[in-house]
Amino acid sequence: MTSATRDDRPRAVVLLSGGLDSATALAVCRRDGFAPCALSVDYGQRHRAELAAARRVAAALGAVRHLVVPLDLSAIGGSALTDPSIDVPKGRDPAEIGSGIPVTYVPARNTVLLALALAWAETLGAFDLYLGVNALDYSGYPDCRPAFLEAFERLANVATAAGVEGRGRFRVHAPLLELSKAEIVRLGTGLGVDYSLTVSCYDADEAGRACGSCDACLLRKKGFAEAGLPDPTRYR
Amino acid sequence: MTSATRDDRPRAVVLLSGGLDSATALAVCRRDGFAPCALSVDYGQRHRAELAAARRVAAALGAVRHLVVPLDLSAIGGSALTDPSIDVPKGRDPAEIGSGIPVTYVPARNTVLLALALAWAETLGAFDLYLGVNALDYSGYPDCRPAFLEAFERLANVATAAGVEGRGRFRVHAPLLELSKAEIVRLGTGLGVDYSLTVSCYDADEAGRACGSCDACLLRKKGFAEAGLPDPTRYR
Repeated sequence: MTSATRDDRPRAVVLLSGGLDSATALAVCRRDGFAPCALSVDYGQRHRAELAAARRVAAALGAVRHLVVPLDLSAIGGSALTDPSIDVPKGRDPAEIGSGIPVTYVPARNTVLLALALAWAETLGAFDLYLGVNALDYSGYPDCRPAFLEAFERLANVATAAGVEGRGRFRVHAPLLELSKAEIVRLGTGLGVDYSLTVSCYDADEAGRACGSCDACLLRKKGFAEAGLPDPTRYR
Repeated sequence: MTSATRDDRPRAVVLLSGGLDSATALAVCRRDGFAPCALSVDYGQRHRAELAAARRVAAALGAVRHLVVPLDLSAIGGSALTDPSIDVPKGRDPAEIGSGIPVTYVPARNTVLLALALAWAETLGAFDLYLGVNALDYSGYPDCRPAFLEAFERLANVATAAGVEGRGRFRVHAPLLELSKAEIVRLGTGLGVDYSLTVSCYDADEAGRACGSCDACLLRKKGFAEAGLPDPTRYR
């Protein structure tokens, strides 16, 4: 094989935040035989270090394209992740993290992200959308539940020229949906994900070092511990 | 009534491009008893004059809020409206305009726009989304058809905390759906819409003056003619 070998794999769009889950979803997309096209949204989030992580992860895991779309959701407001006037919770008991809709919920975030993924997929001739939502999320975030993913898949097939003209059928893949954090970490490690490149922290510093005490950090720590794997996270 | 009178009307989000249809949808939203919150997306479109029109229309028709979200869809590409390398068709026979999916189709545009409207609505505590799609569009654009609007409404109610917690039921209103351009123009005129403020042209100049020969101009001209109303459009 030379570097001029044509890439015959079908393309798929992967939503890539730069966190642990989306990096794993990208690795699964590649394992499934797709040429991964990574889409990151710069949506005015506090954890901008995630975007730098997304670039590193896309390169390390062989994304054939990486598109960063700037979309300032802070104008819309309503979440601790985009609104500086709402505090990110710290030091909570992991057992209480999954209960209720958290203040870090961004209104309709996954609807917005999947809509952008769908638009890009249609341009690329892709029909497969990957995202890294999982069971830990969907107890708290309404737009991480199976009912949401099914409704979006149905929408995609009536919303697009590609779907309506029958050129293909859009599919939403959420390969981590039923996995615990420990299972995700084991899966990704087996697929060659270097988790030291990823940033999950809601409150990471400019260098991407994690706080160690926000909900995302606590769940991530617990995942590595339960998987019996060393935690490569860079803490500050 | 003084200017300090509280506005007890429920809020609704109206997608406002600054064109004829969305201005009419805003007027209908107000007639329906809502406090209209207008949402415009600066999505890198060629017809930026529409955004200036949106500001004038929002003010003239009593929108209580007007939010402009910058979202550069030209990175995603695939349409004559956002990609400078694709020509906008000119001088077509109006009879052929409705056939097939036009090059001015923006991939998944209404999915993206409604997703943003939904996000803002959730922040505002609104449950009603208005958009100005109509029958003339839906022969050509897949995301203007009733099947699309129904699928989005279904999605909205599983995608959001407000929907899942049962605080209300999201509704997508497309009051122009079954109307011809002539009927839209008559409806809006009766509701006080000043169409000289609106810009429909796909190729308007900086001052918002219309070309008179693109699909949007031809359909608009025909609408005023068939309604028996003077055409207030500013042509260059």
